[in-house]
Amino acid sequence: MAPSISSDQIKKIQSQIEEEITSLQLNKSPVELYAPIQYMLSLGGKRVRPMLAALSYQLFNNDIQKIIKPAIAIELFHNFTLIHDDIMDDAPLRRGQATVHEKWNKNTAILSGDASLIKVYELLLHTDEKYTNPLLERFNTCAIEVCEGQQLDMNYEKETTLSEDAYINMIQLKTAVLLGFALEMGGILSNTTEKNKMLLQKMGIFMGIGFQLMDDVLDVYGDHNKVGKQVGGDIINNKKTFLLIKALEEKKYQPTLIDWMNQSQYKPEEKIKVFIDIYNKLNLKEVAEKKIHDYFSKTLDCLNQIEAPLERKHIVQEFIHQLKNRSY
Amino acid sequence: MAPSISSDQIKKIQSQIEEEITSLQLNKSPVELYAPIQYMLSLGGKRVRPMLAALSYQLFNNDIQKIIKPAIAIELFHNFTLIHDDIMDDAPLRRGQATVHEKWNKNTAILSGDASLIKVYELLLHTDEKYTNPLLERFNTCAIEVCEGQQLDMNYEKETTLSEDAYINMIQLKTAVLLGFALEMGGILSNTTEKNKMLLQKMGIFMGIGFQLMDDVLDVYGDHNKVGKQVGGDIINNKKTFLLIKALEEKKYQPTLIDWMNQSQYKPEEKIKVFIDIYNKLNLKEVAEKKIHDYFSKTLDCLNQIEAPLERKHIVQEFIHQLKNRSY
Repeated sequence: MAPSISSDQIKKIQSQIEEEITSLQLNKSPVELYAPIQYMLSLGGKRVRPMLAALSYQLFNNDIQKIIKPAIAIELFHNFTLIHDDIMDDAPLRRGQATVHEKWNKNTAILSGDASLIKVYELLLHTDEKYTNPLLERFNTCAIEVCEGQQLDMNYEKETTLSEDAYINMIQLKTAVLLGFALEMGGILSNTTEKNKMLLQKMGIFMGIGFQLMDDVLDVYGDHNKVGKQVGGDIINNKKTFLLIKALEEKKYQPTLIDWMNQSQYKPEEKIKVFIDIYNKLNLKEVAEKKIHDYFSKTLDCLNQIEAPLERKHIVQEFIHQLKNRSY
Repeated sequence: MAPSISSDQIKKIQSQIEEEITSLQLNKSPVELYAPIQYMLSLGGKRVRPMLAALSYQLFNNDIQKIIKPAIAIELFHNFTLIHDDIMDDAPLRRGQATVHEKWNKNTAILSGDASLIKVYELLLHTDEKYTNPLLERFNTCAIEVCEGQQLDMNYEKETTLSEDAYINMIQLKTAVLLGFALEMGGILSNTTEKNKMLLQKMGIFMGIGFQLMDDVLDVYGDHNKVGKQVGGDIINNKKTFLLIKALEEKKYQPTLIDWMNQSQYKPEEKIKVFIDIYNKLNLKEVAEKKIHDYFSKTLDCLNQIEAPLERKHIVQEFIHQLKNRSY
């Protein structure tokens, strides 16, 4: 199948997802509870997670419509985590728009986040009953891991240094396992082999770690017009990224970095320059890109091993390709 | 069956519930996520909700152990709502101990509340698979109603007056539907008739409204040694209770009440005295007690109509009796 046919297929699934999101009945009362859920969904985004579920499902099935509702549950779960994480991080903006607690208030953000999570479970029931238990068991495990990842992220904020392993474990829990679940959902609802399901899950986790590391690099080296945010935001916020934890490993630069991280009064561009200079001296862009390349190789290895028609696997590959090229 | 045998039966079920709660594996890492869940469960309380589920189940079954795990899910859901409501209400104390956001912080309270809700769904899967879908469908509906009730409660705080109907609707959503679900769970997992399930649900809702109205009266007229909190707390907090909304209906007293509600500097005992005097002049204790009596009559009507052995129904009746007498 030529890439252009894959692209058409991807666009078709994207519009099925958008259509289903639009048809969710969220204009309900009390409006303070439901409007924020609607608002978050309206901010758009690439719908990566439901797309992965649907693309995984099309590996084994023709009628994709059947997975759209449970697939959207994953988007809603992602939004639930964003609403609550934004409160915890005191973040004013999300996708260039006001966060829920800024647009309304913290109480509304807590409660409409809670309602989102319950709605997730409503949507997950829209499958053949025989899949409910295996699907929910896997989802519950994944959902609690996402909470664990968020807690570790908050814990690590207080620590000066962090091992690479601890960092990878944290981003795996906080973001990658949900991509793993999205792909696995397609396998579960297709009643495919245990081996395929396991490969789908692993594939999503490798992909998720790869994308998070890419985000870390893009924050510093990305084209900020394409990335859609200011270059160096992570540096300003002392965010533990792959680049920072690798730089902190170097005794030579550690004191300088820590000194800057403890400053409260400084010129942002000056701090960003110091950090980037250190990253450059240590070739950290290349180190990170090598890591990212490894994770995407492992992702494609998993895809290759999955037993499904080659032309259907190409569609998944094309989608990953599109995501990878979004911002460089 | 004599009341004493019923009491023994109740105590036995209570200890089964406590045992199962103790055996929940919550001493996990990251400790900041799990310790607050454990802490809330350790604060005790009467375990009314899992007790109702188990008592409903024993109407139709001998082996109560089977319902204990899913029954505890309802206790955990209740705790989830308490953790998040306490943040929203800025409450320092819960059952005489520090609330989670006071003992830890708000972020921990948000996140461990979220984790509690996911754990609820884990526990709800501990039934025969054939009950998963009906049980979760009913639970999701109930859970979202609880959120709606909390939102209405927050909305009503900003309004000066409130109709009795709106108030009853709000407390039905915020607290009574969960008691309805607890009793209904026993019916669902017993595969009893639709009629029995409907009666159990209605019974719980009537009971829940009755208990909430009782709480409203006890805040003012209760023996504070038994109630375990200061008399008049609701009056000080301008909480819309049945007594207050009925008093506000009276044109003669409305201005005085509103005037006091808008004061920020006053002697608490003075405000409490003014409100109680008005309540007394309007005989509102009697009005409320009549209402409470009506709701408990309806509760017992439902119980009577349920098709189950009389001696098993007596145990449920005895438990309601114990709850009603807890604080007068």
